[in-house]
Amino acid sequence: MRSETRWLSPQEEHLWRTWTQLNAELSATLQREMQNDAKLSLSDYEVLVHLTDSPEGRIRVSDLARLLQWERSRVSHHLTRMERRGLVERRECPEDGRGAFIAVTRAGRAANEQAAPGHVAAVRRLVFDALTADEVGTFSTLVDKLRAR
Amino acid sequence: MRSETRWLSPQEEHLWRTWTQLNAELSATLQREMQNDAKLSLSDYEVLVHLTDSPEGRIRVSDLARLLQWERSRVSHHLTRMERRGLVERRECPEDGRGAFIAVTRAGRAANEQAAPGHVAAVRRLVFDALTADEVGTFSTLVDKLRAR
Repeated sequence: MRSETRWLSPQEEHLWRTWTQLNAELSATLQREMQNDAKLSLSDYEVLVHLTDSPEGRIRVSDLARLLQWERSRVSHHLTRMERRGLVERRECPEDGRGAFIAVTRAGRAANEQAAPGHVAAVRRLVFDALTADEVGTFSTLVDKLRAR
Repeated sequence: MRSETRWLSPQEEHLWRTWTQLNAELSATLQREMQNDAKLSLSDYEVLVHLTDSPEGRIRVSDLARLLQWERSRVSHHLTRMERRGLVERRECPEDGRGAFIAVTRAGRAANEQAAPGHVAAVRRLVFDALTADEVGTFSTLVDKLRAR
């Protein structure tokens, strides 16, 4: 099998390594700052953003798993921990039998609103302050192209 | 505080959301394929790549934590699990007192070699088959610029 492998070129290897490194660095910094500022993990925040973005502040758990791209068991464990902290609550949905909803609580909305300004400021400092508008456009085109695959 | 927040522009918001989504999708797919093909998690693989890349197949645990951008406790728990599976081994370093080394075992090298071709093929399929050489260069320039901050 090894002989058939098309290994990455030095340029591709460089991009892949630096890209994954950048993601790890950004995640680590954003996580640390959010934990310090708002006592939330980035995962908590992602869940809260999806819930507060949805029309009635609730999403079917299976849809949330798809949005987050997490394994179903990870979603379930994570929601249990967030529920214990009063940030979300499970709601059964007897009428359709297609699985439970998870809803953001008032405390969850408050936590999200408290965390957002600091998080946006960090994203701006770490990413967007470094890029011109043209570069944002170029970057977006590349990301859209990769996501379309 | 909210009034001072410079929220992201629609273009920046689009880039940030699609980029984080792309990263989540890539991680989920690469993780699933590696687990199926090689019975390794992406985290296992990252550790093995750093160890096999190092001159003697060993790295100080604190340096590995920095390379991975993981919290020290996560590194420690992860290495304990990998050690139980025979992929790595801890080596004390009595002469300098600057902390233990972690070393790749023969089984760890074999697992890394078994996983690499499939992983590279997946990265090529998901990322590099979609990009021209010019686009790889453009993307790299952007990533390097962000990492330099």
